[in-house]
Amino acid sequence: MAKKYYSDRNVKFLLHEVFDVESLTEHEYYADHNKKAFDMVLGSAARIAKDKLWPIFEEMDRNPPEIADGTIKVHPAVKDIMKEFAEGGWISTIVPYELDGEQLPHLVAYACQFIFMSANYSASAYTGLSDGAARLIENFGSKNLYDRYVPNLRNGTWQGTMALTEPEAGSSLTDLESTAIPTEDGYHLISGQKIFISGGDNDAVENVVHLLLGRIEGAPLGIKGISLFVVPKFRVEDDGSLVANDVTTSGVFHKLGYRGCPIAQLSFGDKGQCRGYLVGEPNNGLKCMFQMMNEARVGVGLGATAMATAAYYASLEYANDRKQGRKIGQKDPALPPVAIIEHADVKRMLLFQRAIVEGSLSLAMQCSQYLDFEKVLTGEKKKKYSLLLDLLTPILKSYPSEMAILSISQGLQCFGGSGFCDDYPLEQYYRDCRIHPIHEGTTAIHGIDLLGRKTVMQDGKAYELYIEEVALCIDEAKGISELIPYAEKLETSFNNLKALTVHLQEMRQEKGDEIYLADATLYLEYFGISCIAWQWLLQGIAIQKALSGKIKKKEELFYNGKMKALQYFYEYELPKTVSLEIRLRNSDGLTVNMTPELFKD
Amino acid sequence: MAKKYYSDRNVKFLLHEVFDVESLTEHEYYADHNKKAFDMVLGSAARIAKDKLWPIFEEMDRNPPEIADGTIKVHPAVKDIMKEFAEGGWISTIVPYELDGEQLPHLVAYACQFIFMSANYSASAYTGLSDGAARLIENFGSKNLYDRYVPNLRNGTWQGTMALTEPEAGSSLTDLESTAIPTEDGYHLISGQKIFISGGDNDAVENVVHLLLGRIEGAPLGIKGISLFVVPKFRVEDDGSLVANDVTTSGVFHKLGYRGCPIAQLSFGDKGQCRGYLVGEPNNGLKCMFQMMNEARVGVGLGATAMATAAYYASLEYANDRKQGRKIGQKDPALPPVAIIEHADVKRMLLFQRAIVEGSLSLAMQCSQYLDFEKVLTGEKKKKYSLLLDLLTPILKSYPSEMAILSISQGLQCFGGSGFCDDYPLEQYYRDCRIHPIHEGTTAIHGIDLLGRKTVMQDGKAYELYIEEVALCIDEAKGISELIPYAEKLETSFNNLKALTVHLQEMRQEKGDEIYLADATLYLEYFGISCIAWQWLLQGIAIQKALSGKIKKKEELFYNGKMKALQYFYEYELPKTVSLEIRLRNSDGLTVNMTPELFKD
Repeated sequence: MAKKYYSDRNVKFLLHEVFDVESLTEHEYYADHNKKAFDMVLGSAARIAKDKLWPIFEEMDRNPPEIADGTIKVHPAVKDIMKEFAEGGWISTIVPYELDGEQLPHLVAYACQFIFMSANYSASAYTGLSDGAARLIENFGSKNLYDRYVPNLRNGTWQGTMALTEPEAGSSLTDLESTAIPTEDGYHLISGQKIFISGGDNDAVENVVHLLLGRIEGAPLGIKGISLFVVPKFRVEDDGSLVANDVTTSGVFHKLGYRGCPIAQLSFGDKGQCRGYLVGEPNNGLKCMFQMMNEARVGVGLGATAMATAAYYASLEYANDRKQGRKIGQKDPALPPVAIIEHADVKRMLLFQRAIVEGSLSLAMQCSQYLDFEKVLTGEKKKKYSLLLDLLTPILKSYPSEMAILSISQGLQCFGGSGFCDDYPLEQYYRDCRIHPIHEGTTAIHGIDLLGRKTVMQDGKAYELYIEEVALCIDEAKGISELIPYAEKLETSFNNLKALTVHLQEMRQEKGDEIYLADATLYLEYFGISCIAWQWLLQGIAIQKALSGKIKKKEELFYNGKMKALQYFYEYELPKTVSLEIRLRNSDGLTVNMTPELFKD
Repeated sequence: MAKKYYSDRNVKFLLHEVFDVESLTEHEYYADHNKKAFDMVLGSAARIAKDKLWPIFEEMDRNPPEIADGTIKVHPAVKDIMKEFAEGGWISTIVPYELDGEQLPHLVAYACQFIFMSANYSASAYTGLSDGAARLIENFGSKNLYDRYVPNLRNGTWQGTMALTEPEAGSSLTDLESTAIPTEDGYHLISGQKIFISGGDNDAVENVVHLLLGRIEGAPLGIKGISLFVVPKFRVEDDGSLVANDVTTSGVFHKLGYRGCPIAQLSFGDKGQCRGYLVGEPNNGLKCMFQMMNEARVGVGLGATAMATAAYYASLEYANDRKQGRKIGQKDPALPPVAIIEHADVKRMLLFQRAIVEGSLSLAMQCSQYLDFEKVLTGEKKKKYSLLLDLLTPILKSYPSEMAILSISQGLQCFGGSGFCDDYPLEQYYRDCRIHPIHEGTTAIHGIDLLGRKTVMQDGKAYELYIEEVALCIDEAKGISELIPYAEKLETSFNNLKALTVHLQEMRQEKGDEIYLADATLYLEYFGISCIAWQWLLQGIAIQKALSGKIKKKEELFYNGKMKALQYFYEYELPKTVSLEIRLRNSDGLTVNMTPELFKD
């Protein structure tokens, strides 16, 4: 097993030096905390990751969940982990004090989540789901529902889920068919099938609380007729007793990766006795659920970043240890072989990974900071960060998800033949990471969301705010001589993005929505690359600030190493936007006009 | 299971319409054959693939080889398959009549190999290895060795292998340590360890014949001291009896994919009784082995293409069957959902796959044709095709290998959540294909081979011949109005490649080999993309020729569909060279100057 799966130094660099988490404590809501307290929290997360999660990273993969006697059996350690997480306050990090939470900034909470995920993504998924489900009830449910279901979600004895996907409605929530029939007793009778439900059933918990999307009998077609329900596996009666609620586990999927967490197929109301409790207003369920889904999307981006980070450190360790070949030009076979980290192409593969993962983590922390600003600010300022989050969520979801595949694949390549064998963890990361471009909205859906909705919403307000944020960063960087070349490159790239976006809007007028959105996935890719370049420039400012002070040799290496990764991103990754733009400016409608019959033969 | 894993129509299009395989029968060596006979051979291959290989594609993956009682147990069907292949002449397709072979053109032989590989790559690997090992003995071994070992390799009762890699010498053959001590009885005593040996031991055969690279005691250091030996698991005594030859199977690797074929760890001469028989001259082993290795490299490119082809057809079938969502602009939820193949982004993912796999297969067939020309031509002409093969081998090895990962990943994405589950074959293709950029030389090694050796060998002769071949194609395409835009794009791209190559040679003079070769992998990528664009233009000429004649509606769809894939390649893939060139023209030595200590923290 690799000795390192994330960099504590880099997490602290982002939290303190780039995003200045301590400044949040100037706001009353976070006033109880300070830098030292934040570092202690990070230290606690690191210990749990090391002691509890990392040791069973492989084991959970090799012994995936199986169904037996109608229940899904998961790794026995999951139960302890949930308890430990509950006791440490890890299922309520961002919950307010008044609800017995830790009231930590998102910046710190997500940094800890990143640490857990880098140690063992599957193991960290259970409590993340419970936390999200609890918050949904907290924000939109009745006090009665809260009292009955939330405390046990937060104390780690019950599991929360998002029950959205159905066999005939995957990406298309419009077509959800699960039905809810109102009764005179206040509850609804639920019936329907759900698939791919993460944590949907497991024997580590005493109960499972599904946040389920369904359709009240007679509701309008489409997304305007979708309501949100709490549907427990065991419902809580008035006297506090638990009664089986007619929820059947009909299967567990066998998956490529992410095997430590079960994905269940569930059947609701086979006997007509499944009760669901409405959360929020009828037919307003999707809007409520989007709170949990947006959190989950941030979680996916963070998870992809974490996996790719762990893969990077494993390949870095191997590259330092493994001796093979000689440097170009050293032709004498009597010379001893060098560590493969001496080979330029191996360094390229390592720098590629580092540029991707540290850039992605920076964006995740940037969005966490916006979540904190949204929390503590008011009025126009609050709206601003809310809009920026809306705009950047598809990027944070998709860029790390797509790039983790490539990054981990390059990590695997550093191992050569050993990377293909299960003696090393790379093959598992390569399998695990493939879920991310799929769950919580496929990449295509996020592309359409970004180009078709987010860039144009409120007359392009979010997009304009974003451009302003980036411009501030460019201006600051231009004042630092070492950063001028990168600031200029970023400026050019954003000028191109702006012109391209205008061009696409004109194309929309001229050619209609279908051709406009045909290459939305490529637009998302362009947007993502330039967004990560911005994050690298932000990091560059913090790096140069540190280097201009008096620092120790070891620290100098850290900052200089990061500068190389920044440089790599600008010299190897940012140029990819040029090719993307060539295609994006083409409105030939190639894919739109391709007919299915032309795929025959 | 998907119903289709390759296109018979497309294979015939390439063989007959693009590469005119029948014209080879004008040469005496192939004069016995004709078009009808070739089609019958393809038909036989198709039947074996369908009846024997495809039905156990999943099963072989789910029941991987395990070691028991010192032998590796493989799927029981392997034994039958080897028999069937032997009886059908499939282990001697390109072997001359005088050695009881089929004397088929490489074009036909490799097309059949492609069919087998698309049905079940692992199952087809066993006999491919035997064929290669047999040819090596045939070409460089003594008559005695031939008589003792080749017939049983070709009749499917024995297994052949390439035994190169050692624990401390993976990519670096220079450092091979297996030793051979000469004896007075003509044989050598072999001792050493070999790892990652495909088919290296298995219970489907009675014997395993290793073509092993080792070092005769006292030989020079480095590759100039490497010799080639036949080292059987059981050696054949003068009286024909088989005697255990002190070859021990010390392990079988557990792999990400390609699980149907074992990769063994072998120990030679633990008891000092392992006999090896020299093939060719002492210290000239690498040169001999390169014949088998170059065949294996073509096989890897073909195999990657075949896997990606099968994945493409599986995702195409799913996209036609699966209904989900509505077209952009159809907002009425009462409308029925459409097949996902109606969505532009799904069509993009399908066209991407098609453009990659049909372009790659065309290159494989192009190289096969050159192998045939090399066989039947003489003098300068023979030399020409030999040089072209040398130049294009790293491309054929690497482009399909790298692109298969992306192509299959897009195929998986078409399935959404189902692609991540083992109810569908995509997750297996995604695992299986990851071996290709590793075995038979990693991508980095082929990049260095291409830029550092192949483009400059014989004063750039091979490279010049290649440019001439492409120019001929461009000229022809310019005479066909529908192809003019693509011919012009290809011309531009090749002009850029030529200028870039000159620029890199100048950079070599100025900055030395290490910086010159630092981005060789990117040069390989550029070269690969433009090479496949050339293959698409060649196909375009054949397509337009067919469309200008009188053809049936169904045929028209086939050709028009292929034109869309051509267009896709030119509009989405070829532009990627622009970004690559931006980086390749940069000689900042970023990776070269990166020191290992800068990766700390």
